[in-house]
Amino acid sequence: MNHSIILGNVGNFSDRYMGCSYQRDYSIHEMFDRVRSVKGVTGVELVSNWQITAKNCKEVKAEMERTGLKLVSIIPDHFGIKVYGKGAFTSKDPKVRAKAVEDTKEMMDIAHELGGNLVSLWPGQDGYDYHFQGDYIEERGWFEEGVKQCCQYRRDVNVSIEYKPKEPRNFSYPANVTGTLLMIDHMGEKNLGVTIDYGHGAVAGENLAESVALCKMYGDKLLHVHMNDNYGHWDDDMITASIHTIPFIEFFYWLKKTGYSHYISTDQYPYREDGRDACNESVRWFDILEGIADKIDEKRMKEIWKTGNACEVSAMLRDVMFGDKTE
Amino acid sequence: MNHSIILGNVGNFSDRYMGCSYQRDYSIHEMFDRVRSVKGVTGVELVSNWQITAKNCKEVKAEMERTGLKLVSIIPDHFGIKVYGKGAFTSKDPKVRAKAVEDTKEMMDIAHELGGNLVSLWPGQDGYDYHFQGDYIEERGWFEEGVKQCCQYRRDVNVSIEYKPKEPRNFSYPANVTGTLLMIDHMGEKNLGVTIDYGHGAVAGENLAESVALCKMYGDKLLHVHMNDNYGHWDDDMITASIHTIPFIEFFYWLKKTGYSHYISTDQYPYREDGRDACNESVRWFDILEGIADKIDEKRMKEIWKTGNACEVSAMLRDVMFGDKTE
Amino acid sequence: MNHSIILGNVGNFSDRYMGCSYQRDYSIHEMFDRVRSVKGVTGVELVSNWQITAKNCKEVKAEMERTGLKLVSIIPDHFGIKVYGKGAFTSKDPKVRAKAVEDTKEMMDIAHELGGNLVSLWPGQDGYDYHFQGDYIEERGWFEEGVKQCCQYRRDVNVSIEYKPKEPRNFSYPANVTGTLLMIDHMGEKNLGVTIDYGHGAVAGENLAESVALCKMYGDKLLHVHMNDNYGHWDDDMITASIHTIPFIEFFYWLKKTGYSHYISTDQYPYREDGRDACNESVRWFDILEGIADKIDEKRMKEIWKTGNACEVSAMLRDVMFGDKTE
Amino acid sequence: MNHSIILGNVGNFSDRYMGCSYQRDYSIHEMFDRVRSVKGVTGVELVSNWQITAKNCKEVKAEMERTGLKLVSIIPDHFGIKVYGKGAFTSKDPKVRAKAVEDTKEMMDIAHELGGNLVSLWPGQDGYDYHFQGDYIEERGWFEEGVKQCCQYRRDVNVSIEYKPKEPRNFSYPANVTGTLLMIDHMGEKNLGVTIDYGHGAVAGENLAESVALCKMYGDKLLHVHMNDNYGHWDDDMITASIHTIPFIEFFYWLKKTGYSHYISTDQYPYREDGRDACNESVRWFDILEGIADKIDEKRMKEIWKTGNACEVSAMLRDVMFGDKTE
Repeated sequence: MNHSIILGNVGNFSDRYMGCSYQRDYSIHEMFDRVRSVKGVTGVELVSNWQITAKNCKEVKAEMERTGLKLVSIIPDHFGIKVYGKGAFTSKDPKVRAKAVEDTKEMMDIAHELGGNLVSLWPGQDGYDYHFQGDYIEERGWFEEGVKQCCQYRRDVNVSIEYKPKEPRNFSYPANVTGTLLMIDHMGEKNLGVTIDYGHGAVAGENLAESVALCKMYGDKLLHVHMNDNYGHWDDDMITASIHTIPFIEFFYWLKKTGYSHYISTDQYPYREDGRDACNESVRWFDILEGIADKIDEKRMKEIWKTGNACEVSAMLRDVMFGDKTE
Repeated sequence: MNHSIILGNVGNFSDRYMGCSYQRDYSIHEMFDRVRSVKGVTGVELVSNWQITAKNCKEVKAEMERTGLKLVSIIPDHFGIKVYGKGAFTSKDPKVRAKAVEDTKEMMDIAHELGGNLVSLWPGQDGYDYHFQGDYIEERGWFEEGVKQCCQYRRDVNVSIEYKPKEPRNFSYPANVTGTLLMIDHMGEKNLGVTIDYGHGAVAGENLAESVALCKMYGDKLLHVHMNDNYGHWDDDMITASIHTIPFIEFFYWLKKTGYSHYISTDQYPYREDGRDACNESVRWFDILEGIADKIDEKRMKEIWKTGNACEVSAMLRDVMFGDKTE
Repeated sequence: MNHSIILGNVGNFSDRYMGCSYQRDYSIHEMFDRVRSVKGVTGVELVSNWQITAKNCKEVKAEMERTGLKLVSIIPDHFGIKVYGKGAFTSKDPKVRAKAVEDTKEMMDIAHELGGNLVSLWPGQDGYDYHFQGDYIEERGWFEEGVKQCCQYRRDVNVSIEYKPKEPRNFSYPANVTGTLLMIDHMGEKNLGVTIDYGHGAVAGENLAESVALCKMYGDKLLHVHMNDNYGHWDDDMITASIHTIPFIEFFYWLKKTGYSHYISTDQYPYREDGRDACNESVRWFDILEGIADKIDEKRMKEIWKTGNACEVSAMLRDVMFGDKTE
Repeated sequence: MNHSIILGNVGNFSDRYMGCSYQRDYSIHEMFDRVRSVKGVTGVELVSNWQITAKNCKEVKAEMERTGLKLVSIIPDHFGIKVYGKGAFTSKDPKVRAKAVEDTKEMMDIAHELGGNLVSLWPGQDGYDYHFQGDYIEERGWFEEGVKQCCQYRRDVNVSIEYKPKEPRNFSYPANVTGTLLMIDHMGEKNLGVTIDYGHGAVAGENLAESVALCKMYGDKLLHVHMNDNYGHWDDDMITASIHTIPFIEFFYWLKKTGYSHYISTDQYPYREDGRDACNESVRWFDILEGIADKIDEKRMKEIWKTGNACEVSAMLRDVMFGDKTE
């Protein structure tokens, strides 16, 4: 599997209480160095405004060349500037909706320029907070309309949608993997797909291995993966595999089984950890988890699936994880 | 709105600890009387094996005539007999899968015979419990295949699918409203739609008003509604509106807005309450909630939606709920 | 009931994505005016650093005199400055722990100076994020030790602890109402009690009416109340009663029943609403909810409690909420 | 660690839909054989009515002698007979409350007779379902009163309380570890302690390792442990470590650190698995998890705790779990 890091993950973080940030800021130059220092990482992902703009494009290109890191995707900043505070693609204001489309197109051009072919949308401010706050059909219609325009702008850059059930809005568009696939199916654009953020799916109550299967089943639509772990109730954005182990093994197993060949990025918020070290830990766990998934014998797996015996599953996992063959 | 009751709701209940049941059993005759005693209820819903079989069909028809209650739907029992313990439409055993289809067809015939036109599927045992227990793509394929056969069997009876995120399986097929719509879209059968169970959707993290909108937006697929309340984490199957108020008002508002014209059934598990009284309370709350939803002025609502001001929503709700116009 | 507002609630807000804030900043002068404009509010609550420091103490006093607002409590800022990023009372660094105590004592003095008698601790950064990150017994010991020192510093100012299950730490000390009461019991300081934040308790899975009862039962320890609403999974800090209705009625009923006589403050994060209006809406709902709670007849309530019949509860609520006496 | 199995875990199971049970019934004789067949298990736990009564006491004793299994505890059946449907220790009916005490005393005598010294109370039906359904202070008073009488009946048998946040009641008494410790502290009986059910605590939002620490800190009160796994939202009662790994390692680490010396029982509901095999899998995982916990070097752990660096925790876990020392 190809491993990458979202550049800002090795930087500095704030939350609603610690507005002054938990650590110190890092320059883009420093952050590229920090990413490069993580063994096995070959790609980097950028957020517009935060790390990439039309203005600093050359500087970023130089950093990529210097470090040999490939551009995996650009995430247009539809969530961190005031104008999008009440929605980007679904703002009540048509001018803001138009701007969301324009900003995305600009990032599609920049992604292409930087040698990438993916823009990953995370519509964090699209959704609602309160009951009776909006017309769901109209707003979701705006969302589809805006994304369609982006897809049609240029076919050599793919667009993928990262779903999340909530935060920063209390209800987000789209909220889960099937909601995203349904929307994509409805839009019918060929260069449109899904970004799975493991933690977002977990908060949505999904078994992410099944989510990967669903993306395969309904159009082979998985274009990108973001990784982190959480306790199941909130997007804690922790080090991958710091809480769960088996669910990740099944996830990697299904990525492999469905022929996933794109990048896997860390996507974390290490408020109180060193960001570089926290990403490094995730990548180190990727290696272990992929290794265990690789050890699963296809024949044994299919034999178990004939009856679905959970005790045989358990024994198989004891074996591939810890070499334990006790019966 | 048309109100109905699932016949068993006025009966007796057990759970995994109280296998001997909490109360006393009621005969079908008694249960019909208990339903009829609830003011404003004109329909009844039946579960196969539990209340309706090929054998007692005439007896049930006589009860319906005696009480004047219309058949709203039959729910084939895919969850309460041993053969379906590990799945009905998605059993690993092809014979069991075939039986699930046959049982459904039989209930389509009986529904027609009893003057109904809906079979509402609740695939409670279809899903899985453990990681690595099955091939999600294959199993979901079986599900679609089986349901398609039912739909094609006769077009004068509609088939609807009631989703639920979990219980009795730890992961169910399908798990939420968009997963159901995606599946339906994929199957392409005209007489196929969705049953929304309010509580199931709430456990899936949905705002049910939005779920109604989604059913409208993606094919006008809402065929039936089951009502109950819960605390948000589990399918507690309590008296409607015993916990929540505003979310239900929005739900009824959207049912009306989208032109929903089918039945609304209670679907409860009043373990420790008198079942008839618990259903009666739900129906009494339907009246109140629908009344409040009706009081919402369309013009005022659209004015609020222009900006989505949550404080104006709050003031409107204080007004329509309690006549409070304080600013 | 006495109503108050946390001053910052009528100000400006940021979150981890929108670090630049959603709206514009307000001066302290403006915020006092905004609080005063909410009918029925007689008190104000301050957060150190954010609104009150040793330096601006006179200015704040002047504002209180100008607006006639009483000081309800000061919340020492143990969560928004870098030094406390990894804990205040439970920092691994003894110097930071000592500073948390000193900062609290300073705010006790200032509270007294401003005519108040309560410092409400919200130990937001006290807790942990990852498994194996700390020695729970040692850290909780530090917490008790620090709070004891504050209590003993001066007995004419009460100290109360606001619990929360998580955020900003993934696990907080203390996490729920019984954890707080247990700790208080263990510490044995007379001027120590509990601040209930309704939303925190809801996320902890509590029925807040029962939490009020527990505070009464185990030492009559409820000293302060913070109000807001959420969807049950996260501290959404929304307008009170924008989602729930009945749970709040029961909460106010138990406040009254247990003789609660302190203040009830709004505690919200209206990122996208006007803060003043969002607080005003909460206070307007306080009036309605308290009014309904007052309508509950003690005799009827006790009659119902003899058997605990949920259908009678439901009928009673239809009556006191909507004047509906249908049977 | 000493391992045991709740006898019924190797039997047959039903739920609210599958009232007819998922599998076939097993005789007590068969169940004892099934428990004995699990390597390393030396103890058995019994539920009154379900497996042990005054009448079959000799038969059970003979089975224990035949199989060499020690009695770990008896769980009085306060949850599976009609009379307790609305509460045992907290029934509104004083006669039922008295019966709950008498039934417990009888089981204390039988436990003693069978060579045991523990009765583990799981007050499943004590609690409430709806808002306004009861007087929390009065009902909790009844609970404490009843349990006190049991404790005082004979001091040579310990009594422990197993908490759970919900199910079968929507709110249970007591709901979490601190609620139980607070209650125990209030009662002041020396032979009274806590039974931790791992899954119950997980649903209550606890990190169970911290719960073990709390039991140590507030009176050294942990008397018994029940093991199973779940997805974090409901008491799924699955094979231990089928979902989580690291949280269990930390749990075992803290059991050892706090000197826990009592039994660890499986407590599962393997509806669709062979019960014997499902318990066997849990016990096999106990061995693995305890082995990993044992590998944690005390010095390294304390070094990490000095700063609480989560990346060092992660690296340590990669090492002790998989021998991975990559940096």
